[in-house]
Amino acid sequence: MITRIDLNADMGEGFGPWAMGADRALLQVITSSNIACGFHAGDPDVMATAMAQAVENNVGIGAHPGLPDLQGFGRRRMQISLPEARNLVAYQLGAAQAMARSVGGQVRHLKLHGALANMATQDEALARACFEGALAVDPDIILMVISGTAQLRAAQALGARLACEIFADRAYTEDGVLMDRQLPGAVIHDEDQICTRILAMLRAGAIITAKGTHLPAQIDTICLHGDTQGAVAIARTLRSALLDAGVMLQRFDGARSTGR
Amino acid sequence: MITRIDLNADMGEGFGPWAMGADRALLQVITSSNIACGFHAGDPDVMATAMAQAVENNVGIGAHPGLPDLQGFGRRRMQISLPEARNLVAYQLGAAQAMARSVGGQVRHLKLHGALANMATQDEALARACFEGALAVDPDIILMVISGTAQLRAAQALGARLACEIFADRAYTEDGVLMDRQLPGAVIHDEDQICTRILAMLRAGAIITAKGTHLPAQIDTICLHGDTQGAVAIARTLRSALLDAGVMLQRFDGARSTGR
Amino acid sequence: MITRIDLNADMGEGFGPWAMGADRALLQVITSSNIACGFHAGDPDVMATAMAQAVENNVGIGAHPGLPDLQGFGRRRMQISLPEARNLVAYQLGAAQAMARSVGGQVRHLKLHGALANMATQDEALARACFEGALAVDPDIILMVISGTAQLRAAQALGARLACEIFADRAYTEDGVLMDRQLPGAVIHDEDQICTRILAMLRAGAIITAKGTHLPAQIDTICLHGDTQGAVAIARTLRSALLDAGVMLQRFDGARSTGR
Amino acid sequence: MITRIDLNADMGEGFGPWAMGADRALLQVITSSNIACGFHAGDPDVMATAMAQAVENNVGIGAHPGLPDLQGFGRRRMQISLPEARNLVAYQLGAAQAMARSVGGQVRHLKLHGALANMATQDEALARACFEGALAVDPDIILMVISGTAQLRAAQALGARLACEIFADRAYTEDGVLMDRQLPGAVIHDEDQICTRILAMLRAGAIITAKGTHLPAQIDTICLHGDTQGAVAIARTLRSALLDAGVMLQRFDGARSTGR
Repeated sequence: MITRIDLNADMGEGFGPWAMGADRALLQVITSSNIACGFHAGDPDVMATAMAQAVENNVGIGAHPGLPDLQGFGRRRMQISLPEARNLVAYQLGAAQAMARSVGGQVRHLKLHGALANMATQDEALARACFEGALAVDPDIILMVISGTAQLRAAQALGARLACEIFADRAYTEDGVLMDRQLPGAVIHDEDQICTRILAMLRAGAIITAKGTHLPAQIDTICLHGDTQGAVAIARTLRSALLDAGVMLQRFDGARSTGR
Repeated sequence: MITRIDLNADMGEGFGPWAMGADRALLQVITSSNIACGFHAGDPDVMATAMAQAVENNVGIGAHPGLPDLQGFGRRRMQISLPEARNLVAYQLGAAQAMARSVGGQVRHLKLHGALANMATQDEALARACFEGALAVDPDIILMVISGTAQLRAAQALGARLACEIFADRAYTEDGVLMDRQLPGAVIHDEDQICTRILAMLRAGAIITAKGTHLPAQIDTICLHGDTQGAVAIARTLRSALLDAGVMLQRFDGARSTGR
Repeated sequence: MITRIDLNADMGEGFGPWAMGADRALLQVITSSNIACGFHAGDPDVMATAMAQAVENNVGIGAHPGLPDLQGFGRRRMQISLPEARNLVAYQLGAAQAMARSVGGQVRHLKLHGALANMATQDEALARACFEGALAVDPDIILMVISGTAQLRAAQALGARLACEIFADRAYTEDGVLMDRQLPGAVIHDEDQICTRILAMLRAGAIITAKGTHLPAQIDTICLHGDTQGAVAIARTLRSALLDAGVMLQRFDGARSTGR
Repeated sequence: MITRIDLNADMGEGFGPWAMGADRALLQVITSSNIACGFHAGDPDVMATAMAQAVENNVGIGAHPGLPDLQGFGRRRMQISLPEARNLVAYQLGAAQAMARSVGGQVRHLKLHGALANMATQDEALARACFEGALAVDPDIILMVISGTAQLRAAQALGARLACEIFADRAYTEDGVLMDRQLPGAVIHDEDQICTRILAMLRAGAIITAKGTHLPAQIDTICLHGDTQGAVAIARTLRSALLDAGVMLQRFDGARSTGR
C-alpha cells in the first residue's frame, strides 16, 4: 500500500500576452509543478510569475523543457540529435533554475514535455541524452519519469534520483504504457472511475491495465491536467478522494535509483 | 600604474548553421570571454561549443545577455519594462550557467550586449534592473561595466563585484563616454595609436579623452573585437604590446564595489 | 452628415495553441477585419482560420503587420531602420495576401499594429516607409490611417487609397490626436457616452475633442476592440445605435487621396 | 537529347547579421534561384536583397519554403499535419511574392527546402498538401520537383506546371532516388565526373544510376550547390561544360503536367 503520493501538473504555459491553463486553481491541488522553460511555452516573465506562485503556495518547482517549437507547443516530433537533446535540456534547466532563484525558489525536479517526452518514452538513447543534459547541470535533480518506459530505464542507468509518474486519466495497455489517445477508452473522463482506479493502483503498488492486469511499479506522483475547467474539477475530486482514503499528499523524495 | 589587465571579447555569436567571429583565434589572445545566451545570438549548441573552447583555453566565461531580437542581433533598441529587463537577464544568465557547467566551466562575469548595454549606459534604472536580475541568480557574479556610465553607477549602488571596461579602439569624449560612432575619429583603426593610447591609459590609471584630458578611472579590462580579421590582428598586436610593456594579462578579480 | 461608415476590429491574434479575442462574436458586428500577419501574433494556421471566417461573414480583410516581437505582442517600440520597416510590411502583406487567397478571399486594406502604428503616427518618414512597402506589393491597397497623424500625411503624400479611422472609446486632445492612455478620461467605458459621441462626430463630419472642439476630419471607419467581453458588448451597442440613427454600415471605398 | 537546361541554386540563406553562401558568384552561373522565405533562413531584408540581385542578373526567382526551424535550418524533420504543411507553404510563397514584387521581380517557381523536401519525396500526401498550398496562392506557379519521387507524382496529380530536377553531385540508386548521403559514393566531388555524368544524362534523357542503369526521366533543371567555394567552382565548370557541349542554358518553361 502506497500511503504517500505527489500530485503534479504543468504550469506557466502562457507566452507573452497569451495565457493558458488554470495555474492559480491547480496550485491549491498539486504538490509539484512542471514549469515551461521558454522553448515550447513560457517566457522569462511568465516563468517568473509561475515560479513565484509555486513558491508562495509551497508547491515544488520542476523544469519542464520541450522542443524548440513555440507554434506547435512542443507537441510536434522533431528529429533532433543526441547532442542537441542534451544541450536544449541543459539550457532550459539552467534558465528555470535562474528564474526560480530570482523569486526565492529552487528547481527540484525535471520532467520532459510533449513530443520530447513521448520520443523519450520509446528511445532510451534520447532519454539518456536529455537526462545527461540535466544531470550535467545539477547532479541532484530528481528526474520525473513515466513508469515502464525508456525514460525510466535511462534514469536508472544513470543512477539518478527519480520519481515515477502515473496518469490520472489515461488507460494503460498490457505492456504498462499509455494507450494511444486515438483508441476508445484511452482517456478516462469519469471522475469516479478515475478516483477508484488510482486508489486501486496505490493499494496494489501496481499499474492496473485497461484489462485489469496488475503490473507492479514504483509510483511516486500522479499527473493531473489543468488546461480545462473539467480538468481542474477532476484534480480537486481526486485530491479529496486521496485524502479521504488516508493517503498523504506530499512531494516525492526522489530516492536515487539503484537500478533493477 | 596599472600592471595587470584583463582582455575581453565577445564569443559564441553564431546561431544554428551560421557562424560569426574568429573565436578560435581570439581565445589565444583574451583572458575573458562574453558568450551570447540565445536571445540575440547563440543557441544551446553554439553556447556549449563556445563554453567548451573557453574552458579548454583557460579563458574566463561571461554571460552576454541581449535583447530578444535575433534578426537585429540585439542591436536595435527596444522599449522594455524594468521587470522584463530583470527577467531576461536572469533567464539568460541561468542558461549560460547551465551550459558552462555542462562542459565543466562556470560563469564568472556578466556583460550586457548591444542595445541593452547602450541603453543601460544612459538609464541607471534599466542598468539596475538588469543587474538585479543577475545578482538574484548569483550574488557573486562580477558585473563587467563600462567605465563612467550609468552601468557603473548601478553596479556600485548594488554593492556588486564589478570590473570596469575600456575600449581598445574607441575614442572618448570629455565626459568619459564613448564618442558617437558616426563622428570622425570615433573608431581608431591604427594599431600603433591603439597600443600607445591604451598603455598611456594604464600608466595614468585614467581614461584619456580624444582631446587628451586624463579622467581618473578604475580600469580592469579592455574590450577587443574579433568580428573581422583586422580586429584579430589588432587584438594580437595589443596583447604583445602589453606584455612587452610588462603588463600582466590576467582575469580581473572583481572586487566588490564600495561605492564612491 | 456622414451616412455610411465602416466598423473595424483586430482579429486572428492567437498564436499556435493560444487563442485571443472574440473573433466569432466580432464578425457579426464589424465590416472590416485587421488580421495579424505572424510577427506580433498569428501564424499561418491562425491566419487561415481568421481569413476563412472573414470570407464566410462577408467581412473585409485587412493585413495588420506589426513589429517582429511575439513576446511583446508588437507593443514594445523597437528602433528599426526605414528599409527594415519597408521590408517587414511588404513581407507581412504578402503573407496575408497568400493566406486570404488560399481561402478564397483577398486583402483589401492594411493597418499598422501596435508600437509600429504608434511610431508611425509621430514619424512621417517611418509611416512613409511602411506604406511604400505596402504599395510596392499592391498599389491599390487601401491604407487605413489614424486621422490627424503622420500616418495620414504619409498616405496622402503617396497618393494612396486611404480610409481614415477614429476610435470608439478613446478621447481626443485639442490637436486631434488620441489622449495618452494614462490620463484620466482617455479611455471611455460608458456605452451611452461612446454612442452619443460617435454619432455626434458623424453628424459633424469632425473629430470632437474631450473639450468639445470640432476638428473637421475625414472619417471612414470606427475602430472597435474585441479583446474583452465588455468590448464586444460595446461594439454591439454601437452597431445598433448607428443603425438606429440611419447610418449605413459598409466597407469604406478607399478613395485615392488627392492630398490636401 | 536534351538541348536546353536550367541551372538552379539556393540563395538568400542568411539571417539578420549572418551571411551564408556565395550568392553573387552563383548568380553568374545559374538561371533560376530558390530564395529562402523566413522560416528556416531569410528575413525580409535578406530576401529583398537576394530578390533584387536575382532581378539584376536576370535570374528566375523561386520561393524556397521550409519548416519553421531557424536553428536547425529546416533540416530537422518535424511531424506536421497536412493543413499545417499547406498553410506554411502558402504563407511563405506569399511573403516571397511580395518581396519579389517590391523589387520589381516576380516569383516564377517554388521548390521545397530541406527536411520538408525530403519528407515530400517519400510522402505523396504531404507533397500534395504543400503544393496545394502553393497553387491556392498562384495556380500558375511552376513546381520544381525531384524526378522520380512523390513530389513529382503529387505535382502531376494536381495538373500543375512543373520542372523536374536532377542533382549535379549526387549519385542515384536503381530506384532513381538519391543515394543516402551517408553511403560511400553518394556525393560526387570530382568535377570531371560530375560534368561527364550530367552530359550523359542530358544526352540520354534519363537519370543514370550509380550502377549505370538508364531510367528515362523528364529533366528540366540541375541543382547546384553554392555553400562552399568548392561548390561554386564545380558550378562554374559544369556551366562551361554544358555550353561547350552546345546545351543552351535557360529557364525551364514549366509546361503543365499531363500526368502519365
